[in-house]
Amino acid sequence: MDLQQLRDQIDEIDRQIQTLFEQRMETTTKVAEYKKENGMPIFQTGREDQLLEKIEQRSAPLYRNGARVLFTNLMDISKCLQQNKIHESTPTLEMLRESFAHPAPLPEHPIIACQGVTGAYSHLAAQALFPGEEVLFYDTWEKVFEAVEKGVVDFGILPIENSTAGSVREIYELMRRHNFYISREVKVRVDHCLAARPGISLSQLTDIYSHEQALAQCSEFLQALPQVRTEKVLNTAGAAELVANSDKPFGAICSELGAKEHGLSILRSHIQNNVENYTRFICISKNLYPTKEADTVSVALSIPNSEGKLYRLLTKFYVNHINMTKIESRPAGNKNFDTIFYINFTGNIADQTVLDLLGSLSRELDYFKFLGNYPEDHLTNE
Amino acid sequence: MDLQQLRDQIDEIDRQIQTLFEQRMETTTKVAEYKKENGMPIFQTGREDQLLEKIEQRSAPLYRNGARVLFTNLMDISKCLQQNKIHESTPTLEMLRESFAHPAPLPEHPIIACQGVTGAYSHLAAQALFPGEEVLFYDTWEKVFEAVEKGVVDFGILPIENSTAGSVREIYELMRRHNFYISREVKVRVDHCLAARPGISLSQLTDIYSHEQALAQCSEFLQALPQVRTEKVLNTAGAAELVANSDKPFGAICSELGAKEHGLSILRSHIQNNVENYTRFICISKNLYPTKEADTVSVALSIPNSEGKLYRLLTKFYVNHINMTKIESRPAGNKNFDTIFYINFTGNIADQTVLDLLGSLSRELDYFKFLGNYPEDHLTNE
Repeated sequence: MDLQQLRDQIDEIDRQIQTLFEQRMETTTKVAEYKKENGMPIFQTGREDQLLEKIEQRSAPLYRNGARVLFTNLMDISKCLQQNKIHESTPTLEMLRESFAHPAPLPEHPIIACQGVTGAYSHLAAQALFPGEEVLFYDTWEKVFEAVEKGVVDFGILPIENSTAGSVREIYELMRRHNFYISREVKVRVDHCLAARPGISLSQLTDIYSHEQALAQCSEFLQALPQVRTEKVLNTAGAAELVANSDKPFGAICSELGAKEHGLSILRSHIQNNVENYTRFICISKNLYPTKEADTVSVALSIPNSEGKLYRLLTKFYVNHINMTKIESRPAGNKNFDTIFYINFTGNIADQTVLDLLGSLSRELDYFKFLGNYPEDHLTNE
Repeated sequence: MDLQQLRDQIDEIDRQIQTLFEQRMETTTKVAEYKKENGMPIFQTGREDQLLEKIEQRSAPLYRNGARVLFTNLMDISKCLQQNKIHESTPTLEMLRESFAHPAPLPEHPIIACQGVTGAYSHLAAQALFPGEEVLFYDTWEKVFEAVEKGVVDFGILPIENSTAGSVREIYELMRRHNFYISREVKVRVDHCLAARPGISLSQLTDIYSHEQALAQCSEFLQALPQVRTEKVLNTAGAAELVANSDKPFGAICSELGAKEHGLSILRSHIQNNVENYTRFICISKNLYPTKEADTVSVALSIPNSEGKLYRLLTKFYVNHINMTKIESRPAGNKNFDTIFYINFTGNIADQTVLDLLGSLSRELDYFKFLGNYPEDHLTNE
């Protein structure tokens, strides 16, 4: 048989499988309708395992694994389609519906919370999202979460991911312990400069202060200044403040905003090794503010650490044509190294497909938390 | 129609699908054989898309997404089965084969590298893996990687994950930049004690030194000691050393081993908030030492950030009945927040299924690195 004949054969087999697939979907829909009419639970545990056992028993050994995967997939697809028809509600969906029906009014002049001091990169993120609005500074990230939770401020700005250093794990820790929604997101280019008090030149500097990560990000620049000591401080804007208040010939590595806010002169700009260095900030709030522009949904969920669970979870996304844009796993904090997944996907909660997916996740998983729906971050200060 | 009749109908449909599935697998095998005989590439890009397009065109709109997923899955299963028959080689597989054929002899008295000082938790991990062997201490993790890479030491011990704080991101950074294999793994219970020089009592203490994370892990204990200042140092064993060398009434929070090694008395044991606190250490080496006991494979890989890619990657694992035990995503360090996945799965590289999976991953992905195969971590110091 030549290649074309074999391919025609495959096409014919596919055509038959497709017909049977559609027949199967119609039949399972009838089952769901029957159960609904008779007050039976739609999804019965045990039935799936029975079916798979039958499949495996009658399979040729060579194809057993493949058949198991195919039929698991087939049942998951079927479940997705049925759930999308039923639109069963859950507390998460009720909450979303309520927030649509009675949307919280967006504050005209919101108060923003940032960690650090004036000129910090999170201040830059706040200015990008809310130009000209009032910013309160807290000395820890936890206090920013608390200020939002208690309603002391309208929004809190928190760094969640750096393109070089990765996720900010302390923020993930805090996200688990606090209640909030992610309302916005913004990506800020990390662009360091070397600054000192006006009148002080580069050759006079004895010490350069900055955050540990910023010093590391500028290591190539610093190697060319062997006479200068480097000193770690808690954040880059704090370094600028310290240098401004000292009478010694000190330098600070910070953002240009940080230098400006503390009255420093810029000696050198763009001194980081890697020009492509970005930090993603989330903007959290106590209220959910649904918008039409929102195109990213964030959720946190936990799945049992057993074979195929993650795979089958992803089937739900794939069948609904929903694109997962980020998946981040964090330990649940117990001995088994169980995992919490932080997942971002494309969509708006006004879309029924997204609601169905959220409903299905919140129904089936032991731990599920809707974190927010907001417009994808755009790049600021370019 | 009643429920049983509907279910019988589903069973009959499944039986037909299964028969067609096996026919399809046989036909695609013939296609692969034909191509091999005629010197054609086994997998042709474009052919899959054509097939899926045909499927979508003739699908009822309601079932279109489902049909696309099912047939993508079907083709991925078919590919896995074919690859498992062909056993095509790749540089990774050649390297593994070579290491089987000429295994490096395991050093009788290996030299171990740890970061920190005597009594650090990584020292504890080293002792658990290599009781009584020589340990060299380096002041940074990078130097441990370098010592292994240059062959100065046989093994390096590095913390990779803590059950509370999560992955140690600096180690992941370093893993990307250095060449090594993971040879062993060990989970160490983080069990802090409060220690001081002999003769000093709890009520006399003015300052307690420890690593920042250890202080945080003992925050509840410390809250009951309001008169005591806490001071951060670089590691817990360093705190013990500092306290031992001081003539002031200082305390250190460290492991019991750390206290013992520096001649301190233990004032209180098990003082951490969360008793379930574990750190996982990897043991890296320049040589690959294949063992029969190895049951965990570690790989690093990058997949394009587009719909379904992760899902389709997982199909390979699922079809081969290979259980993924850990998935950790890290940024690739560019503007698009591209992702590198660190994946652990169950298996031994002597197993053909594992080799086939590794071969398929290394062939198909732009970035793929085999990191090691070793026995799953067991819990020590319990």
